[in-house]
Amino acid sequence: MYYLAVDLGGTNIKAGLVDENGNILNRAQRPTGAERGYEEIAKDISLCALEAAETAGVSLDEIESVGIGSPGTIDNKKGIIVYANNINFRNTPLRSEMQKYINKPIYMGNDANCAALGEYVMLKQDMDCFVFVTLGTGVGGGVIINGKLFTGFNGAGTELGHTTLFMGGKECTCGKKGCWERYAATTAVIDMTKEAVKANPGSYLASLCDGDIEKVGGKTAFTAMENGDELGTKIVNQWIEYVAEGITNMVNIFQPEVLSIGGAISREGDRILKPIIKYVEENRYSRDVEQTKIQIAKYGNDAGLIGAAFLGKH
Amino acid sequence: MYYLAVDLGGTNIKAGLVDENGNILNRAQRPTGAERGYEEIAKDISLCALEAAETAGVSLDEIESVGIGSPGTIDNKKGIIVYANNINFRNTPLRSEMQKYINKPIYMGNDANCAALGEYVMLKQDMDCFVFVTLGTGVGGGVIINGKLFTGFNGAGTELGHTTLFMGGKECTCGKKGCWERYAATTAVIDMTKEAVKANPGSYLASLCDGDIEKVGGKTAFTAMENGDELGTKIVNQWIEYVAEGITNMVNIFQPEVLSIGGAISREGDRILKPIIKYVEENRYSRDVEQTKIQIAKYGNDAGLIGAAFLGKH
Repeated sequence: MYYLAVDLGGTNIKAGLVDENGNILNRAQRPTGAERGYEEIAKDISLCALEAAETAGVSLDEIESVGIGSPGTIDNKKGIIVYANNINFRNTPLRSEMQKYINKPIYMGNDANCAALGEYVMLKQDMDCFVFVTLGTGVGGGVIINGKLFTGFNGAGTELGHTTLFMGGKECTCGKKGCWERYAATTAVIDMTKEAVKANPGSYLASLCDGDIEKVGGKTAFTAMENGDELGTKIVNQWIEYVAEGITNMVNIFQPEVLSIGGAISREGDRILKPIIKYVEENRYSRDVEQTKIQIAKYGNDAGLIGAAFLGKH
Repeated sequence: MYYLAVDLGGTNIKAGLVDENGNILNRAQRPTGAERGYEEIAKDISLCALEAAETAGVSLDEIESVGIGSPGTIDNKKGIIVYANNINFRNTPLRSEMQKYINKPIYMGNDANCAALGEYVMLKQDMDCFVFVTLGTGVGGGVIINGKLFTGFNGAGTELGHTTLFMGGKECTCGKKGCWERYAATTAVIDMTKEAVKANPGSYLASLCDGDIEKVGGKTAFTAMENGDELGTKIVNQWIEYVAEGITNMVNIFQPEVLSIGGAISREGDRILKPIIKYVEENRYSRDVEQTKIQIAKYGNDAGLIGAAFLGKH
């Protein structure tokens, strides 16, 4: 049997045909057209998924289920997208709409949760608990408990990035202040670098972006550090501590067997991983027990699609 | 069938005979003698549990299992107490030692986790997720997921009090700085009151403890507030915000159906509950979904014993 998976984004609908081992055998894609009504988008999601099967010569009889990964808050029990910021969905009955085109079980999940599930499935290791943290524009995450995606009673759980680092601190998009996300997202390292460039216009760090803060990227401080720059090193180290403090919290709460760190910035690898591990070891609560293995995520962009495929199974 | 339960403390061993509905039918108690070797303590735990059955005329044949709630880090899989501060246990094979006296399945759990499980069982309501937070000398907690106690892969999970409120803030007993526990425990409200009394020796608040900070208790600021005192009100409100910020984090992470607040200070009831609910509603991440019901714990001191009894079942 095969699984159909959809990674729904603000710009594109990406579909995949996935086998039982998590291999993506075929893909299809079309624009989301996020400005349209949900009926049209649901139709395109359905047709895109079906296309991924058809163009691989796989009939619907061979499909076990369809899984949709979507940004926002998803209620899989009811089959609705409660809220998705960049697609303008609000209490949208995506499942019932899609079932007009696909007569198969349809499962829905938040995209960060799907990425967590995909990473878990591909690690091919039974675990009591697995935590996935993704560092991007925000800090997202997902938690797998006893092989099942944990999302709380209303599907909105594991908003790991929206836990406190500094109560009353920087304003977060969620309305609360001082969330982990505001300090540990890629956006945060960019903000810190911009501030440093502004405050130190003659520095080596500033020279890397020609003194133009608009040219600062997520890698700027890392490049400076690589070249022995003190200012760049300071920024990276501070950001790593912010990341590691939040990861310590997740370890104290979940004590997962494995905690994987994903997102583009995780490609920095050992440069960020080793100091994070050291910080967590020094700050975690329980020191006398077997410890969480902290590692860089291995399955990158495809994890979301693979996880969506396995939503029904997990 | 019946269950035997033990609430192991630094001072006393308390045992109970519990029926299938969570009623405590009989009790037994003896001093822990924490300074003794673990063999002697394990023998007394066993005999105390057996006594709770015998003096009720219940034979061992009618006992389903024995559950032990203990402070510290417990590894139920291995049957050891990894670490318990006030009993000097360290990698103590309590289960195998107890099995010399009791030939029944023996389950072990952390005392805060047992209290969480007891509260959950007595609420008699199936839930996807239930979170219990207890405010005492520290901030402890427990999480029930799909009817089962969640403790992470090593049994050391849900150290909810050791999550960050102010990164780099007040030193915590755990070695980390700025933990929720340091701001939201009963101890924290006492510390805040002591500081206010010191800074305002002529105040009404100071008069409540004859200006002697040693007489400040967990209720002093509450009593002042009750009598319209501004200083007392300020302390209580600040403390409530600290409590509520951490509870917001737990809601954002777990999205439990019910979150219960226990510990002696929770007897303040609506006075603390209502502002906590308001704060969480204003600060939680997902506002468009069905919301967590936040309430005061209902089963007080007995929850730990009841939870220990049901460790095997959950």
